[in-house]
Amino acid sequence: MMKINIEANTYVYPNPVTLVGTEVEGRANFMALGWVSRVNAKPPLVGIGVNRLHFTAKGIQETKTFSINYPSADMIEVSDYCGIVSGKKVDKSNVLEFFYGYLKTAPMMTESTLCMECKLVDTIELPSNHFFIGEIIAAYTEEKYLTDGKPDIKKMNPLLLTMPDNRYWTVGEYAGKAWSIGKKLKK
Amino acid sequence: MMKINIEANTYVYPNPVTLVGTEVEGRANFMALGWVSRVNAKPPLVGIGVNRLHFTAKGIQETKTFSINYPSADMIEVSDYCGIVSGKKVDKSNVLEFFYGYLKTAPMMTESTLCMECKLVDTIELPSNHFFIGEIIAAYTEEKYLTDGKPDIKKMNPLLLTMPDNRYWTVGEYAGKAWSIGKKLKK
Repeated sequence: MMKINIEANTYVYPNPVTLVGTEVEGRANFMALGWVSRVNAKPPLVGIGVNRLHFTAKGIQETKTFSINYPSADMIEVSDYCGIVSGKKVDKSNVLEFFYGYLKTAPMMTESTLCMECKLVDTIELPSNHFFIGEIIAAYTEEKYLTDGKPDIKKMNPLLLTMPDNRYWTVGEYAGKAWSIGKKLKK
Repeated sequence: MMKINIEANTYVYPNPVTLVGTEVEGRANFMALGWVSRVNAKPPLVGIGVNRLHFTAKGIQETKTFSINYPSADMIEVSDYCGIVSGKKVDKSNVLEFFYGYLKTAPMMTESTLCMECKLVDTIELPSNHFFIGEIIAAYTEEKYLTDGKPDIKKMNPLLLTMPDNRYWTVGEYAGKAWSIGKKLKK
């Protein structure tokens, strides 16, 4: 075996790219975030790891709500901008279009392909980050991103992120049917 | 705006495909898992959402250790097999090659492109799932998967998963430099 031991600070390959919407100090803000995962099936819960120094962390703690928005690859510049510029210094609500659903403090980005509005249900305190767990109470998309009523990743054309090389990627080819293609290995 | 409200049980686009290694009832087991994210920067913590009925959940609770392994797209059949067949019924340690690092109860899959061995540091109890938080204590790869000493996703060629359409995907084209391409939008 040719395995080599690399540093423990390794990452997930790849992270999805999302934009987290919050209302902070009375204005809408969006932050780029890759540390996101579903964490529970029923009810639908999603978790996000947010550095405790981020403006977004303050907003989630204040309003107990947030949104998760998927940019298309066409939105690469604005998505990266949301990751570079802090809402502490720049009022991003002036340059981005957003809308609201049921929650009046979880702005969602209009241009995004899929938006989920979330109600905070738990906060796990970790050494450098908060891990916020939210219940998805509604999700919004457009007909053009659906196939058979389900979001279609090739139509959404989202971005992926790898760290620590800090590169964005698109989604490639269809590779196979899940919970199916492995059946041939069953005895 | 043409937004439509779809069901709240929406997913992350896309999930990375991983295989979680555990030792359960004295034998190595691997389960396919897409609900994974880094959750903390320093120390490097990773979280996984595991249904409490899974054999893997039992192993993590017993040994307080687990591993996260990235299959290449060439491993699509064996990865899916690990998601279809429960270790409760089939001893997968007979059909998979694995090795150990520092922890003697966190088997890692030899064929995987990148393996992380993790020590359990916290368990969050959610309605249908455990959310296990592990500290990555070491990571293993092979020289052929590195570029400039960092894992290179195009060399690793991992799998992505979308739900609820249950389809696997590969990673596509390089799209741009993170924390850089958005600078042109700064005033």
